[in-house]
Amino acid sequence: MMRDRSTRSATERLARQSGRRQAAGSPLNIEWLRHVVGFPERGVVVAVSGGLDSMTLLHALSAWRGSAGNWLHVAHLDHGLRGAASAADARLVAETADQMGLSWTVEQVDVARLVAVEGGNLEAVARRVRYAFLQRTAERLGAAFVATAHTQNDQAETILLRLVRGTGLDGLTAIAPVRRLAPGSAVQVIRPMLATPRHRIAAYAQRHGIRFHKDATNDDLSRARNRLRQIVIPELARLNPRLGESLARLAAQAREDSDYLASVAQGWLQRHARRVDRRLALPVTELAALPPAIRRRVLHTVAQQDDYPAVAFRHINAIEQTLLAADAVGKCLDLTGGRTVRRVADALVFA
Amino acid sequence: MMRDRSTRSATERLARQSGRRQAAGSPLNIEWLRHVVGFPERGVVVAVSGGLDSMTLLHALSAWRGSAGNWLHVAHLDHGLRGAASAADARLVAETADQMGLSWTVEQVDVARLVAVEGGNLEAVARRVRYAFLQRTAERLGAAFVATAHTQNDQAETILLRLVRGTGLDGLTAIAPVRRLAPGSAVQVIRPMLATPRHRIAAYAQRHGIRFHKDATNDDLSRARNRLRQIVIPELARLNPRLGESLARLAAQAREDSDYLASVAQGWLQRHARRVDRRLALPVTELAALPPAIRRRVLHTVAQQDDYPAVAFRHINAIEQTLLAADAVGKCLDLTGGRTVRRVADALVFA
Repeated sequence: MMRDRSTRSATERLARQSGRRQAAGSPLNIEWLRHVVGFPERGVVVAVSGGLDSMTLLHALSAWRGSAGNWLHVAHLDHGLRGAASAADARLVAETADQMGLSWTVEQVDVARLVAVEGGNLEAVARRVRYAFLQRTAERLGAAFVATAHTQNDQAETILLRLVRGTGLDGLTAIAPVRRLAPGSAVQVIRPMLATPRHRIAAYAQRHGIRFHKDATNDDLSRARNRLRQIVIPELARLNPRLGESLARLAAQAREDSDYLASVAQGWLQRHARRVDRRLALPVTELAALPPAIRRRVLHTVAQQDDYPAVAFRHINAIEQTLLAADAVGKCLDLTGGRTVRRVADALVFA
Repeated sequence: MMRDRSTRSATERLARQSGRRQAAGSPLNIEWLRHVVGFPERGVVVAVSGGLDSMTLLHALSAWRGSAGNWLHVAHLDHGLRGAASAADARLVAETADQMGLSWTVEQVDVARLVAVEGGNLEAVARRVRYAFLQRTAERLGAAFVATAHTQNDQAETILLRLVRGTGLDGLTAIAPVRRLAPGSAVQVIRPMLATPRHRIAAYAQRHGIRFHKDATNDDLSRARNRLRQIVIPELARLNPRLGESLARLAAQAREDSDYLASVAQGWLQRHARRVDRRLALPVTELAALPPAIRRRVLHTVAQQDDYPAVAFRHINAIEQTLLAADAVGKCLDLTGGRTVRRVADALVFA
């Protein structure tokens, strides 16, 4: 399809890049990493569970830029969920880091006890505690990045899982290749293997004799994710052997589309939202004139606040159905966490 | 979640609407149909294969507004693919229309022979021939609408099928509830049961003793769609019993997002594209400054022309990778169907 009539430089450049990747055989997306400002010089904390993916990530990062210097630090959180196996994972990670001459941090948290005391879903609590640990570690060391070992397979599973549970475009963006670790944090989470299928990771690990503990992360997997992985994805892969690539491309395109739509909604809010005390008011006439794609995002941005339970599609739908009509003045809807939205004259007031 | 502090009118209105639907038990999305301008007064050709879905659609349309008057016409295309069974389908449709006092058109096409002569995929050719027949019939009768019996299940299958084969946001819009039958045609295709799960259609058919021929449409189903229907979807439905609803909502939201993004791209093209003879030129500096979501759509709109083989993601990607750089002047890429795009000074020229 592609033909270059004047020079062959573009094709050659692509071949060269691809050749470099092949030669290295690295599971890292090195071409992409080169464009991430400050990576890895400004410091990388690599999250290592002891499983195949993260032990491979650790090896590949070190092999790529050499383990000399102090840019790479190994972090492991022992969730205390699997007794002796948990302790063995922590030992493997620390030993490997020592052998590579890397500094490391291992911490232990009793996630099961946390859930018993504070409630919540085990998987979600473990994830929250783990990312808090990684952030703490990165900030203590002054590292700009936390690297995690998410793969193209994780990306495909996440897209399908969200699709099944119900999602829109924004949910299909799935796992971000790079993003701020938490709102306001200077630390970024980066996924250098997000474009890499797991079979390539396994091949690299075997080639380099990488030690890892099998199934170390499977305790974290929800039953739904396991069913997708074991039943649904193999069936879909029969229809398209390059399923992972197709889904990864969808996620990347969805991210571009979603980012653009969010920026349009944000621009509208900057021009039209008025803040009165701790309340926020939107003009109904202008809101009603917006294309639905932008109106939904404006409403969701205002309705959703950090640390509150998530505002869902049905809340946004209810606002559109109930509060935008001419006869809606005085009406009020509840959002999550005790918040409300009330129609006052030509304004929607979020409190 | 929803509470109305002043009056209960919004809740009551919803309850009333839902009550009306329940009372009627109709598989049609009647609330939505009321908002479609000209439906059904300006004439409806209903496409009836003889299977469960379309025989139910015929019954429900007639039951909704009465079969009196000449707004409803029954159309059946015998694809000639299943010998005696095909003829029996045609007979059932004509007999049913006669019993209901409705006018009807039955035509026969030898789809297998067409494929043998002209080539192409059986399913795609059958579809093209069928829609041409429906358009011809509607235009002959001066009907504004062609109604088809697509269900929420068809919508879910289409989304998953596209997802597996590789798609972006625009493909996730899947089956449109209403759209122009062909570019430039005054006839609209409308799907009054697109929000209805098949089990409700089957229940309605049983309640009303609707006659239909089993599996009449299954010849048209691709093997991939059958595998999805029989293996993948039941497994996904175990994870979310309301899967069909979630996917239908995704399609509706994707349509709003996609329409908005297309309108922004269209607006940019109207301001920036120059036509010279039969060529079209885009300014590279302005193009490069666009957000990727809009740039991709601008390029796709210009690269894709009716009646040419489809331009794919890889073509758009190649244009972005190869022709936008400063050193790309003079380079040229092939699109499908012998078309090209060439970098000339600060312009991309599509020929």
